[in-house]
Amino acid sequence: MRYGRHTSESAPHPARMTSRHRRVMQLAAGGAVTWRSDDVSIEEPLEIRVGAVPLSVTMRTPGDDFDLVAGFLVTEGIVSNASEIDAMRMCPDAAAETGELNVVEVILSPSAASRPVTPRAFFMTSSCGMCGKASIDAVRTKTSWEVRDDPLRVSPSILFGMPEQQRSAQRQFSRTGGLHAAALFDSEGALLCLREDVGRHNAFDKVIGWAATQGLLPLRSHMMLASGRASFELTQKTLMAGIPLLAAISAPSSLAVELAAASGMTLIGFLRGERMNVYAGHERIAAA
Amino acid sequence: MRYGRHTSESAPHPARMTSRHRRVMQLAAGGAVTWRSDDVSIEEPLEIRVGAVPLSVTMRTPGDDFDLVAGFLVTEGIVSNASEIDAMRMCPDAAAETGELNVVEVILSPSAASRPVTPRAFFMTSSCGMCGKASIDAVRTKTSWEVRDDPLRVSPSILFGMPEQQRSAQRQFSRTGGLHAAALFDSEGALLCLREDVGRHNAFDKVIGWAATQGLLPLRSHMMLASGRASFELTQKTLMAGIPLLAAISAPSSLAVELAAASGMTLIGFLRGERMNVYAGHERIAAA
Repeated sequence: MRYGRHTSESAPHPARMTSRHRRVMQLAAGGAVTWRSDDVSIEEPLEIRVGAVPLSVTMRTPGDDFDLVAGFLVTEGIVSNASEIDAMRMCPDAAAETGELNVVEVILSPSAASRPVTPRAFFMTSSCGMCGKASIDAVRTKTSWEVRDDPLRVSPSILFGMPEQQRSAQRQFSRTGGLHAAALFDSEGALLCLREDVGRHNAFDKVIGWAATQGLLPLRSHMMLASGRASFELTQKTLMAGIPLLAAISAPSSLAVELAAASGMTLIGFLRGERMNVYAGHERIAAA
Repeated sequence: MRYGRHTSESAPHPARMTSRHRRVMQLAAGGAVTWRSDDVSIEEPLEIRVGAVPLSVTMRTPGDDFDLVAGFLVTEGIVSNASEIDAMRMCPDAAAETGELNVVEVILSPSAASRPVTPRAFFMTSSCGMCGKASIDAVRTKTSWEVRDDPLRVSPSILFGMPEQQRSAQRQFSRTGGLHAAALFDSEGALLCLREDVGRHNAFDKVIGWAATQGLLPLRSHMMLASGRASFELTQKTLMAGIPLLAAISAPSSLAVELAAASGMTLIGFLRGERMNVYAGHERIAAA
């Protein structure tokens, strides 16, 4: 894959600020008013184009933009891995007045480009009407890999140790309180990649895009950890990367549980302290 | 506005379950394993059609679907209030195998139907490229009401009392831990409407749609409270309803702050206990 910024080749991950100082009025108990500088997480639009055709706009925290785009293409089923992306570049012609680079143009390989690109929101409407089952069927049709037979077995003690690793690796959270995190672990519970973003789906795409560009897909016997809740969308993204286990600090939704159960994936919620709930795929939790 | 379900007229808010029992394996400290029933928030797709044309699919918690659709149409700038919606109905022809009703068809008034419907994601790309300023300009072009001159003044003690009102009104949160909430307050801090959803943007749309169908738009001198963070999208929705103040329990993003500041709106973050940060529109906070 080739990367470009403006018209010249450069590093794939141009450094970007992820927070900005803001002057805020702080009111404390008793009515005391102080003015101080506060770090606010940066949110900016990113447009993804395939060729010259706009595919999507996401509100994201700048940084790791090529990973975000690669991950988005994988988790939407537009490519199955990074070898189907011929090139990505930041578009100079779309640079804003302020010089911000918020448009990534992708050139797909001939094989990927020949497949139709269906917006995910609508590919589910054809089979049995609009329902949870149709959403699940649509994901299961799109995915390139099965996780059902993944031999991963993991002990509770390894899982209990993951949230603290994630928190200590979060470079931003303590400063702004405004970022979601996604973290990828190997089967021994070692943290491989952590990304943060104002949008939790973007944090997932950045991690999965990083893995794609490292040639690591499918992520067999790996584990993903979400800093918040487990929605259908995050479960879908995990599955599209071939990851057999998703854990979340907070609650899962009904459709996340149903997608995990239908796919043979392990789904864990409320992973806090030395407690957790296992909603699907219990057989992967090894006895202590 | 007319409401329909199947082909007959019926109540505008068909009762829907918002959580579902799931059997979960719970692991506690020390390795104790128990199996029990857990309440999981329901997430299902909802397709919104204008005439027969699909406009959007959102993953939402079923219930208050007509409010959700009305709010979505307002906050996307497709209608300015409920009088521009001639009718809404649940589509029986799109009922899923399981009988779930997850498609709402909208008939717009002739005035609204004659305006072009631009997907929000792309209406920002024309002016100065893809950037935060373009996003802000696009919202400010779309909004029907100005909040800059809204005379609302509110004391810190009224604001400090809002989160507890929101929490005690949340019917679902304590049971599933999986729902976002949006709450609308009047200028005296009285709670008017609270809605919950797996998607925080849906919770906002349900509240704003409820207000629209009550003929309350624009919501001058009202206040909105978000249970989580304040993103650009939630700030936009608040603004599109004519609400001059948005408060959030957690952090705002940079673009939320910039949109609020550019629009003359008050934006509050970290509203917890008797503390808060005011990021924009400080003049509306009255001395204690």
